[in-house]
Amino acid sequence: MKAIYTSPIDWLENRVRILDQSRLPDEEAYLELEDYLDVASAITELKIRGAPAIGVAGGYGVALGALKIESAQKNDFLKKLDVVMATIAATRPTAHNLFWAIQRMRKAAEGIDDVDRIKSALVDEAVKIHAQEREATYTLSQFGAELIRDGDTVLVHCNAGPLATAGYGTALGIILFAIEQGKKIKVMATETRPVLQGARITAWELKKAGVPVTLIVDSAAGYFMQRGEINCVIVGADRVAANGDTANKIGTYTLAVLAKENKVPFYVAAPTSTIDPALASGKQVPIEQRKPEEVTHIRGVPIALEGVAVQNPAFDVTPHRYITAIITEKGITKAPFGEGIGG
Amino acid sequence: MKAIYTSPIDWLENRVRILDQSRLPDEEAYLELEDYLDVASAITELKIRGAPAIGVAGGYGVALGALKIESAQKNDFLKKLDVVMATIAATRPTAHNLFWAIQRMRKAAEGIDDVDRIKSALVDEAVKIHAQEREATYTLSQFGAELIRDGDTVLVHCNAGPLATAGYGTALGIILFAIEQGKKIKVMATETRPVLQGARITAWELKKAGVPVTLIVDSAAGYFMQRGEINCVIVGADRVAANGDTANKIGTYTLAVLAKENKVPFYVAAPTSTIDPALASGKQVPIEQRKPEEVTHIRGVPIALEGVAVQNPAFDVTPHRYITAIITEKGITKAPFGEGIGG
Repeated sequence: MKAIYTSPIDWLENRVRILDQSRLPDEEAYLELEDYLDVASAITELKIRGAPAIGVAGGYGVALGALKIESAQKNDFLKKLDVVMATIAATRPTAHNLFWAIQRMRKAAEGIDDVDRIKSALVDEAVKIHAQEREATYTLSQFGAELIRDGDTVLVHCNAGPLATAGYGTALGIILFAIEQGKKIKVMATETRPVLQGARITAWELKKAGVPVTLIVDSAAGYFMQRGEINCVIVGADRVAANGDTANKIGTYTLAVLAKENKVPFYVAAPTSTIDPALASGKQVPIEQRKPEEVTHIRGVPIALEGVAVQNPAFDVTPHRYITAIITEKGITKAPFGEGIGG
Repeated sequence: MKAIYTSPIDWLENRVRILDQSRLPDEEAYLELEDYLDVASAITELKIRGAPAIGVAGGYGVALGALKIESAQKNDFLKKLDVVMATIAATRPTAHNLFWAIQRMRKAAEGIDDVDRIKSALVDEAVKIHAQEREATYTLSQFGAELIRDGDTVLVHCNAGPLATAGYGTALGIILFAIEQGKKIKVMATETRPVLQGARITAWELKKAGVPVTLIVDSAAGYFMQRGEINCVIVGADRVAANGDTANKIGTYTLAVLAKENKVPFYVAAPTSTIDPALASGKQVPIEQRKPEEVTHIRGVPIALEGVAVQNPAFDVTPHRYITAIITEKGITKAPFGEGIGG
């Protein structure tokens, strides 16, 4: 696969290096973090974002926190580790990958008596999570590429590229694989208000890869679908329920409804770490409500009436009936999703 | 009706006074224009916007242009008047009201021989257009208010208030009349990218009127409709075809599709000057494509990858099958619209 791989997060022995995505595309600025509280802040402040990348960061955050616990007494160590895990878990509520990664970290600590060996097992597990997620996005991108036809214009929302996944990307990975297969693909990207991940990050990643991309405001997607200029929609996911209902960036549900109305295939691409088998449907997904300033200001500049009331849900849930297929590293599951996803 | 009436345009003998809407809500700055070319620029640069207000400005622009024509010879005067009209007509292509107003001005000049009397007839006609449009929005607001129930939350898009209409507003006029009737109404307003008429102008007008308003990003409308938190959608219009198809601010079609999917009534409110009986369907409406900088920059601040390709259609067309009713000063026409609208 053509290398556009910019890594959003890397493990450097006893610290992590994070590309500060909140400053893209103006600056490619890296942060080196040793304190797990800084990793937690980086997640909350969207310096690292995208469900799979949040999961990877969560694993590394727990590992960093574990390394700093001074107790050599196992029970005391584990009590303190619980606090670390709870802090990382409290950063953002919607992406399942975060809780999946923390759960893996918790299990990795089990059955080991020596605190130093627990620490080393936790670091190993975090590195392993990252490697597996990278591999998963590579594999799912290959599967998904089969769904894209030569000449297609693909609509993407938010950012589901390497930076969102700490891997090869989901929606963008699929597009890049399709191009590698010799298909001519155009991408239309929504700007994705309020945080503009499309305008800032997707455009940046695709430009690096030499893929033609056209930026539109979120509310113009319907115009292009109605005119037959979009051949399919591919989005990532923050949490997929057992029935296929998918929580993803605010606006995804709207694109899915528009796609159905205009008979455009609507694909969700996510590693299985995004699937929450414990949730029967998307109605139970906790939706993060973020601060009003994301809507009323852009880069510190006020853009709305001062003091206006705001609601700023960061995600919405697309019921499975709008989804044509879900693509994971285990393959393509087409609707209906009764038999489980990615199995 | 409760007075929130801020006039976007007024005739002052031989000049017009325009509230510069591009500077709201930061400044309430007025421009006094004597040159019709400045009126044309004010329309192009969105200093005055909203289809009915553009129509009123077009009438005054033609009147100003006529006053400055120095020829006393009728044929020569009319030739120069044609240039004035063509210049005003070339400012923006989508709002029908502009062409309707210019057509009325053209007719007002007919059958008069004396150039000075033509000039005076043109000024009178422009003033009359303004008065009639003000009256039309007052009347349609009364009709429309009957559709709103006590306790409703109404979703509005872009700005369809007094400033958009040089009158009482269309969508906002209806809401204000419903409140006057003693109904408790909440408003949810989309910010309306790229030019943010919702965040800047609708929020400003509603705050002045003391109406509770909550601002959301455009792509969050689906989230709130899906949760049953929107009781109806009311939008204005830039051009309504004979079959009821409605061109309006980009994103309107999306809201209409979402409304249909969620069984939420979707209303279009416009004076009959917005109706283009010569257009059989909305497919023939010319859609203005505006400059990329509206998408890539906000108030001069870059918000997207530098140099990214952009498509920026300013309007879309909502097919009539998504529209529950169209409200004009002649009454409420419910779907289907086979018998003509506002008749």
